Amino acid sequence: MEDLKQYIREVPDYPKPGILFYDISTLLQNAKALRMTCDRFAWMFHDRQVDKVVGMESRGFLFGPIIANDLNAGFVPVRKPGKLPWKVRSETYDLEYGTDSLEIHEDAVGPGDRVLIADDLVATGGTALATAKLVEGLGAEVVGFGFVIELEFLKGRDKLEGYEVHSLIKY
Amino acid sequence: MEDLKQYIREVPDYPKPGILFYDISTLLQNAKALRMTCDRFAWMFHDRQVDKVVGMESRGFLFGPIIANDLNAGFVPVRKPGKLPWKVRSETYDLEYGTDSLEIHEDAVGPGDRVLIADDLVATGGTALATAKLVEGLGAEVVGFGFVIELEFLKGRDKLEGYEVHSLIKY
Repeated sequence: MEDLKQYIREVPDYPKPGILFYDISTLLQNAKALRMTCDRFAWMFHDRQVDKVVGMESRGFLFGPIIANDLNAGFVPVRKPGKLPWKVRSETYDLEYGTDSLEIHEDAVGPGDRVLIADDLVATGGTALATAKLVEGLGAEVVGFGFVIELEFLKGRDKLEGYEVHSLIKY
Repeated sequence: MEDLKQYIREVPDYPKPGILFYDISTLLQNAKALRMTCDRFAWMFHDRQVDKVVGMESRGFLFGPIIANDLNAGFVPVRKPGKLPWKVRSETYDLEYGTDSLEIHEDAVGPGDRVLIADDLVATGGTALATAKLVEGLGAEVVGFGFVIELEFLKGRDKLEGYEVHSLIKY
């Protein structure tokens, strides 16, 4: 079976010296790799009766809607403060230095909705967990997290303990 | 045939007083509406032999990858300055007040590539035209522009004269 890792470009010293960045643009721009990635991603959750896929701005927008379409679900964007036009709920979470916030529309998910949270990459899991809190705060159920890339050494999976977590490419 | 306009939420006074904002999140979160939108969008270009779909940060990321997947093409993100990790080309364009820039990876498209530029909405057409310049500057051919929503009163189509332009919902 083809290893998706070959489609990821490794960029040294981005966004700052000493960081090795995993660039998904080389995967996205390859029609076959894009198709395989989304097929496998959707397959991991095809039997979980997902109603809505939630993705975080902005790289989460790249894969979430395709996964939603493949699972016959809707897609819900979670955005940075002030970007969603209607009534929102907010969640603040800790960064290495300081805090950040995410917002979701109040009517985006609700009781009875089974939600998959999807993103291109999981590092420490902070934004993923904040997104789960937004979803659960609106009464919906998080059936799992899916990521294209997982940076295992940052232990995001520990922060998401108790949830089902799947990823396609591990470093 | 079902009118997609019924899935768009109209939000008055966003992002500032006097502006009526067309919110696509209500379309995205509805599985059936998302599927119809992407089916119709891809259908408009299904016979144009598209190799790459190019979409602009960040709402262009919501539809572009699905259209690419449906057309058996790759997806190329165009982003704001500093967001792409590898070697980029830049294009600066005029806003109502001041200027803004967009970037594309140098190897994202090239000679022989037939490119569809896709976005959620076309207003004045400034970012769409800047994106075409980036694509053409790398030697690829723009086969057309596709938009979910077109604000006809802002005459973006005039700015894109000479190109094939399609949209699904017109205001």
